Amino acid sequence: MPPIKLALVGLGKIARDQHLPALAANPDYQLIALVSRSIHEQQALTVAFPEAKLFTDLDQLLASGLEIDAVSLCAPPQVRHAQAARALAAGCDVMLEKPPGSGINDVQALIHQAERHGRVLFATWHSRYAPQVEPARAWLESKRVTALKVSWREDVRHWHFNQEWVWQPGGLGVFDPGINALSIVTRLLPDGLYLTKARLDFPSNRQTPIAARLEGALAGRASGPVEIELDWLKTGEQSWDIEIGTDQGRIELTHGGSRMLIDGEQIAVAGEQEYPGLYARFSELVARRKSDVDLTPLALAADAFLLGERREVDAFEW
Amino acid sequence: MPPIKLALVGLGKIARDQHLPALAANPDYQLIALVSRSIHEQQALTVAFPEAKLFTDLDQLLASGLEIDAVSLCAPPQVRHAQAARALAAGCDVMLEKPPGSGINDVQALIHQAERHGRVLFATWHSRYAPQVEPARAWLESKRVTALKVSWREDVRHWHFNQEWVWQPGGLGVFDPGINALSIVTRLLPDGLYLTKARLDFPSNRQTPIAARLEGALAGRASGPVEIELDWLKTGEQSWDIEIGTDQGRIELTHGGSRMLIDGEQIAVAGEQEYPGLYARFSELVARRKSDVDLTPLALAADAFLLGERREVDAFEW
Repeated sequence: MPPIKLALVGLGKIARDQHLPALAANPDYQLIALVSRSIHEQQALTVAFPEAKLFTDLDQLLASGLEIDAVSLCAPPQVRHAQAARALAAGCDVMLEKPPGSGINDVQALIHQAERHGRVLFATWHSRYAPQVEPARAWLESKRVTALKVSWREDVRHWHFNQEWVWQPGGLGVFDPGINALSIVTRLLPDGLYLTKARLDFPSNRQTPIAARLEGALAGRASGPVEIELDWLKTGEQSWDIEIGTDQGRIELTHGGSRMLIDGEQIAVAGEQEYPGLYARFSELVARRKSDVDLTPLALAADAFLLGERREVDAFEW
Repeated sequence: MPPIKLALVGLGKIARDQHLPALAANPDYQLIALVSRSIHEQQALTVAFPEAKLFTDLDQLLASGLEIDAVSLCAPPQVRHAQAARALAAGCDVMLEKPPGSGINDVQALIHQAERHGRVLFATWHSRYAPQVEPARAWLESKRVTALKVSWREDVRHWHFNQEWVWQPGGLGVFDPGINALSIVTRLLPDGLYLTKARLDFPSNRQTPIAARLEGALAGRASGPVEIELDWLKTGEQSWDIEIGTDQGRIELTHGGSRMLIDGEQIAVAGEQEYPGLYARFSELVARRKSDVDLTPLALAADAFLLGERREVDAFEW
């Protein structure tokens, strides 16, 4: 198969840190366009991709006549739907950063559009490609799950400095990292979970929560409590930890899924491989003409907002 | 088929006004149990059903050994999941008042539970049984839809007086009536719609919104704007109106779906038939051993909370 002619749209932190290096290393792709409102300030970035044409917005690219097979969308979620709909209409396959949209129904509209036009749509959940997620899933397959605990605590000032969109409606606030945890646990627990209670802390000057405490229950053949703590003001040691109790011992995924412990004993450590895994998966989906859109993590976040108790907390400033 | 031995759980306003009269008129059902925390204050209600045994909670009923085929759950949504899960586990078919739960994932867990145990689950959306909904759907089938406008304005003090659960987390606030409108429009527009913007007004002393303004777009083959206004402080004339523009004229459903106008001309008026329609449908589903759970209206409400801008407004007192 010839390489996929890909355009990368949105050159924020995640594109620079993750997408560009993963694309540079994968011969399945030819990066032929870079799109960013501030493309002219980002010349340095583009040096590594001398073949790529530069555009300030997606419409300019689509009107240019440049032949592209696919787009990878990394702009904030609030504009994702409109970009994806235009790209699908123009005949491109589409890969979406997480979350795939600002609501369940806008992503469902994209699913139907992709089906009607025979295009491939891939809603990525990068944390599912953390190295210990599949080994943990395999370990859990033969066990009965009895409890789930998630502690996802990081420093927004360090990881999202000045990214105002996270505080704007649709930006998810602390659920922007939190949905990574939800994407892992919904992969590990095929019968899923549901929420019974949520407390959301909104800074007095912001539209999205800075902390959340979710309670719920395991569904299906599993049975037991769910506790999820999300905190965006954690300084010092960060925690991206998932602990799952079973009838045959306790498994922990720490460091965002790169380390695995069973009954407290560390049994695997590995380096980060998330974005190379995502792009390998997209190229496979494109070859098979198959879409992959799982809305479960987004639906859990939506449930938290729907049933959450709101509490006002101190104003947030960068 | 012998009549379905049914227990009605929750004897609030909707049960008294709608469920009991519909059951009394339908020979497919034998109402054999009434369940309410305040059952002993409701003797007058139960006179019409001399065969019905009385219980103060569902567990008491399930432990009694009374043989029941199905339960109809009318208690507030915050307790619906736990009641439904217990009834399914006890081997009953289950009919759920709207909304079917306090979140998308808790209803999905019930769907899977019903499948595993071969039970029928019916998530009702009573407004879909308003008399002009199916005629309007048939009229729309051959048209291209270009716009949707919903105005759902009622007086919470009149319709929900002292129902504190509507203001508690998971009680939906103005989306409790608003979801009726969402259930109608998602029936009328099979390609659906999605939200792009929402403003939610929360009284300073309450946990759920008292008003909402939603904006969005029609999906699929339809194309055009969506505007939805929900207001719970409307006194005087109430409005439960839906207006749909098409390439071949404009259709209006007013009075909650009981009147239909085309290009401003009233062409049909009918009396209310919603709950008789619901119970006819449930008996058909039970006979066919088929579930019917459409989560789209709840997912639209969840999307509004997820992407909504929150605004604090005056405190609400009854």
